[in-house]
Parts: sequence; C-alpha cells; structure tokens
Amino acid sequence: MSKLNRRRFLKTAGAGGVGAAAAVTLAAPAIAQTMPEIKWRMATSWPKSLDTLYGQTENFAKRVAELTDNKFQITTFAAGEIVPGLQVLDAVQAGTVECGNTPLYYYFGKDPAFTFGTDLPFGMNSRMKNAWYVHGGGQALVDEFLRTKYNCTGFISGSTNCQMGGWFRKEINSLEDLKGLKFRVGGFAGMILTKLGVVPQQIAGGDIYPALEKGTIDAAEWVGPHDDEKLGFVKVARYYYYPGWWEPGSTPHNLFNLAKWNELPKIYKEVLQSASYDSGTWMTAKYDAVNPVALKKLVSQGAVLKPFPPDVMDGCYKAAQELYAELSTKNEWFKKFNDNVQAFRSEQYLWWQVAEYTMDTYQIRFRNQRA
Amino acid sequence: MSKLNRRRFLKTAGAGGVGAAAAVTLAAPAIAQTMPEIKWRMATSWPKSLDTLYGQTENFAKRVAELTDNKFQITTFAAGEIVPGLQVLDAVQAGTVECGNTPLYYYFGKDPAFTFGTDLPFGMNSRMKNAWYVHGGGQALVDEFLRTKYNCTGFISGSTNCQMGGWFRKEINSLEDLKGLKFRVGGFAGMILTKLGVVPQQIAGGDIYPALEKGTIDAAEWVGPHDDEKLGFVKVARYYYYPGWWEPGSTPHNLFNLAKWNELPKIYKEVLQSASYDSGTWMTAKYDAVNPVALKKLVSQGAVLKPFPPDVMDGCYKAAQELYAELSTKNEWFKKFNDNVQAFRSEQYLWWQVAEYTMDTYQIRFRNQRA
Repeated sequence: MSKLNRRRFLKTAGAGGVGAAAAVTLAAPAIAQTMPEIKWRMATSWPKSLDTLYGQTENFAKRVAELTDNKFQITTFAAGEIVPGLQVLDAVQAGTVECGNTPLYYYFGKDPAFTFGTDLPFGMNSRMKNAWYVHGGGQALVDEFLRTKYNCTGFISGSTNCQMGGWFRKEINSLEDLKGLKFRVGGFAGMILTKLGVVPQQIAGGDIYPALEKGTIDAAEWVGPHDDEKLGFVKVARYYYYPGWWEPGSTPHNLFNLAKWNELPKIYKEVLQSASYDSGTWMTAKYDAVNPVALKKLVSQGAVLKPFPPDVMDGCYKAAQELYAELSTKNEWFKKFNDNVQAFRSEQYLWWQVAEYTMDTYQIRFRNQRA
Repeated sequence: MSKLNRRRFLKTAGAGGVGAAAAVTLAAPAIAQTMPEIKWRMATSWPKSLDTLYGQTENFAKRVAELTDNKFQITTFAAGEIVPGLQVLDAVQAGTVECGNTPLYYYFGKDPAFTFGTDLPFGMNSRMKNAWYVHGGGQALVDEFLRTKYNCTGFISGSTNCQMGGWFRKEINSLEDLKGLKFRVGGFAGMILTKLGVVPQQIAGGDIYPALEKGTIDAAEWVGPHDDEKLGFVKVARYYYYPGWWEPGSTPHNLFNLAKWNELPKIYKEVLQSASYDSGTWMTAKYDAVNPVALKKLVSQGAVLKPFPPDVMDGCYKAAQELYAELSTKNEWFKKFNDNVQAFRSEQYLWWQVAEYTMDTYQIRFRNQRA
C-alpha cells in the first residue's frame, strides 16, 4: 500500500460504520476457477512484539498460501496499522478488511455474550475449550451469534492457555486488599472485580509500565511469563500472582466477513478452517514451549510468585456467578451460552480430576521431591 | 478390491519385506499438474469400533479430499483389512500401502526408541507433547529417525490424552500385589512392569473380555472410559484404576512412505500436514468430549474408581527410570530421545504447576464442594 493510500485508508477506517470504508476495499475478483488468485488483508489486535499472538496470524497466512500454491494470499497487519486493535470486529463486519484476528471478548461492551467466544472467567482450560468448540456445540453457537448479529463467521485459533493473575506492587493477603485497588485488567473481568471494590483501569500495553512505575495504578495483568517479560513489569511490581482465573484458556478468533466468505470457492473455505486449526496447534504449543523459559528468567530477576489466597479466589468465583446470573436474566444470548458452557464444563472436570489431574499431580509432586 | 485381488494382496503383504509387495502397489500417476488426481490407501491399526481412533483417520481422509477439491483421495482401512494392525509401519516402509495411521510404540520390539513417537511412560501430558513436537525439536527428531531408518516420514495426529490404568479383578493395595499379576498391557510398559514382578500379557482387543472373565488374566488396560465401555470390562473386573502412567498423552502417527511422499507436489505435502493437525485437534477434543459421559455410565454400572497407591506409583516410576538408563547405555537413538524429552519435560512441569495446575485444582475442589 502506498503512503497516500494508507493515509486515505486510515482516515476512512477511522470514520468507521458499516458502509464507510467500502470505497477502499480491494475489488473482489470474479471467482470462477477452482483456485483463483485472491489477496485478502487481515487486521489483527496484536502488536508485532507479541511473537506468539501476532506470530500465529503470520503463521496462518503462511499456511493459507502454502495450501493454495500461493494463489490465496493474506497480508497481516499489526494493531493500529490499518485498523485499531480494539476495532477489528467492526472492520471485518463492515467489510473494510476481508478478515481479522482478534479475541471476541474485546467486544463485550457491544454484547457480554462475546465473552464466550474467547473465555469465560472460571470457565474451561484450553483443552476443554477445544472439546466444547469442536464437539460440544460451541462452534455452531458462536457462529450463529456472529452470522446473525455481526455479519461474520470464523474459527478459534489456538490458546494462550491459563494466564497469570498479573503484577502487584503490594501483596494481596485477603479479599479486603482488593478494595480500591487500581488494577489494569481486561474488560469483562473488570465487571466481576468491580463487585469486590477493585477499580479496573483500561490501559494499552505500552502505557502500563510507566503507570505502574509512578504508582498511578497498583497492579496490572497482561498475558503470561513470555509476553509479560518483554514489558519489564518485574522491575516495578514484583509480586507475580496466579492463576489468571479470568482467562483459563483464552482463544483468539479468525474472523471472516460473511459476504467475502460466501464468495470463496469451497476449497478456500476448507483451507481457512484447516489453516486455523494447524496454526492454532502451533500457537498453543508455542506458549507452552516458551513460558517455562521466561518464568525462570523472571524469577531470577526478582519476581515473587504468589497464589491468590483462597478467600480471594472464592470471593471472585462468587462474584462471577452473581454476574452470570444477572446477565442471564437480561440477555438471551448470554443465557444461551452460559447454560451450555456451565453444563459442559461441569462434566469436563468430573472426568479431568480422574486420570489427567492425578497424573499431573504425581508428576509435579515427584519433580518437587527430586528438586 | 475384488476378492481375488484382496487374497493376492494379503498373501503378498504377509510376505513382507521392502520389495515384496511392489507388484500390487497402485501405479504412481505422473505428477505434472499442481493438483493431480491421486488415490492412496491408508492402512490403520484400529478396528472400526474405535470411533475416535479410527474416526480420526476417516476425518483425516475427508479433510485431505476437501482441501484438494477431491483430487487427492485417501481410502482408510481398518486393522486387518489389508494389513494387520501391528504391521502398519512395515507396510508403509515397504510401499505396500502409501500411508498408514498407527502408534509408533507398537514397533518398540524393532527399536525401543519408537516409544518416543507415541508416548514415554511418566513422560508428558498431551499439551506438553504437542509443545515438544512442534517447538521443542520433537518433530525433527522423530522424522530423522523415521527417514533414516524406516523409509517413512509423517506427523502426529491428536492424542488419547491421559489414559486409565485399566480393569482389575482384585484391589491393588501395594507394590507387593503386582507380583505375579497377569496383566494385559501394551508392550513397552510391560518392560517396566516386568521389573516389578508383573507378567505382561499380549492379547488383542476382542479376546480380552473372555480372558478376564475366565480369570486367565487378572487385569487389562485398554484406553479410557469411552473405548473401554464398549468392551464391557466392568462386568468381569470392577476395579478401575488410574492414572495410566504409561500413556499420559499418547499420539497416533500419520506415516507416509518416503518415496511416495517425495513424488507428491508441494501443495499436497502441505495438505497432509494441515489435515493432520486439523484432524488431530478433532481427535483430542473428541476424547475430552466423550470420556465424561462414558465414565458416568461405567460408575452407574458398578465400576469402582481407584487411584494406584503411592508406593505403586513410586515403584513404577523408579523402575521406569532404571529401564531408561539401561536402554540409554545400549541404544544411541533411545539416549538421544530420552535426554531431549527429560529436559523438556522438566521445564514443562516447572511452569505447569503455577497457573495451569493451580487453576485446575481450584476448579476441581470447588466443583466437589458444591456437589
């Protein structure tokens, strides 16, 4: 894209709205052949420094090209390059870009039901989330929601796995310590924490460090060791709490504009599905591979690992259930998702606690014995 | 295949050896176009009744066809249809069939290093296995082993996740109770259990039930609730032990004959990779989705869930480490794999015990409190 075109595009994209950006959309090629040449743009919610989340979108585009002999080319853009990171859904919905990669819970302000597309606080771990999505009716439910209300379709694409609870300047010893706490935390979790007296702060990634350093905020959560380490939080807030109960297995979403999707030959739709799962496997595995290395580094830099105290976990769990009950009475889609997820989740842990958890317990206990 | 051809094929396949079956191999089409029409046969190690393991191979073939506009067709065969279930590697190596789906540890008799292609007892859970395979050097190592020694290449394809320890006619209260126990158990684990006095039994799936019923054997392991339930073991051996420490995250393998693989256009190689990961996601998720339902059914039918006692777990762990040390002195490939896996595994549990395990623990404890 030339500088002139980019400026024009950014201006148009900034104007937003469903029809606004149509003028700069690439002309859709006539699709007659089995594998026509197509170029799409993918807006993402990630800075390039997040080599796992942004890396996943690059890997996805690479797989799509490789699966189509380079006929189907997707160019990925970091947050803010052509669309602001928090407006990827809007841009895909409007057709400003053909596709995007974003976590759906960024849009919980439009509808809290979006939360289920990414992760429900105290929901399921990343393997359970896959089970729900692929075999538990999750994909059909998310897709119905996206198609009927937001002119999109898509697939989940990997998981961050269970995140950390974040960096705190002072220790959290009880539920009382949450009162008045200025905590940089993702939106939907903020609704739960507000019930417990927390004052959630919305701050972009790059601005968190100075805010923590000055004490403008008391705490901040980001993702997990690998991503957190890059932002250097350990130097200004050394208590590193876990688990991030609001994101036990968060999944970004590959979103496709519905009209653009419908224009694709069948083979390209299949390619977008398989590339999503292939790239999702890549990302979930990458977080597991890189987090241990970063965790050791952070501890050597002075991070003090702390589990949230039991009464904090219990208080947050209770507040979460209250919120879900409230939202279920007010919002039909939220209730539909919540009833489905809670039932599936309960069955999952019934089984998980038998072989899987007992095996993990043994491996962890034994490792510690030998350490 | 006509009856005559099938008889001729089986006879030839039975003769084995690298060149033996060349006469009945489908003629390789000249590959000039980007997406030529190709038909391959896939021999699998699974009976059709295993709807998750065999189902995964059908799903794989379906994805390959969908990703190639039906140009690349793979027909799957159940164990014994064209190749015996335990000889899939041999058939792919010889080019009798172009591809197969089998767990590599079936071939530990040829080389104990095959174990690492599927699962190491007390190794890694299924997510860690993916991390090792995709980002920890596992894929390169397995592939080098397969290419240089067995004329094959391939990809892992999903996981059974942590398996159960099996069905026992009597309770196991200590390590002493393993002495003389006639236990139907997969091959490599048998080498560990032999050190503890167990008498491992090799019995095909369909023959386990009568052997257990008559008391010819004392115990039998198969997979997990969903697959076990179909074989009806609960009626003749009600103590259902966990975890199956010999299979914390077993992965079947899509195997391709190297010469056939090299003949493929690049795009088809990419398709085989993405279809493997797509189908792998499908299988791992399916086991998670169906096991809880089967477990509840088994308990209602009288299954008594029992964790292996701590001294049994410790004794087995110790015996496993002894075996790995012995094999490492005798077998270069085993040592190469084992050094790599042990180092990666140790880092994995270091991180796993923080956010992931603490979250699972909370979810399980809380579920029980409410139950």
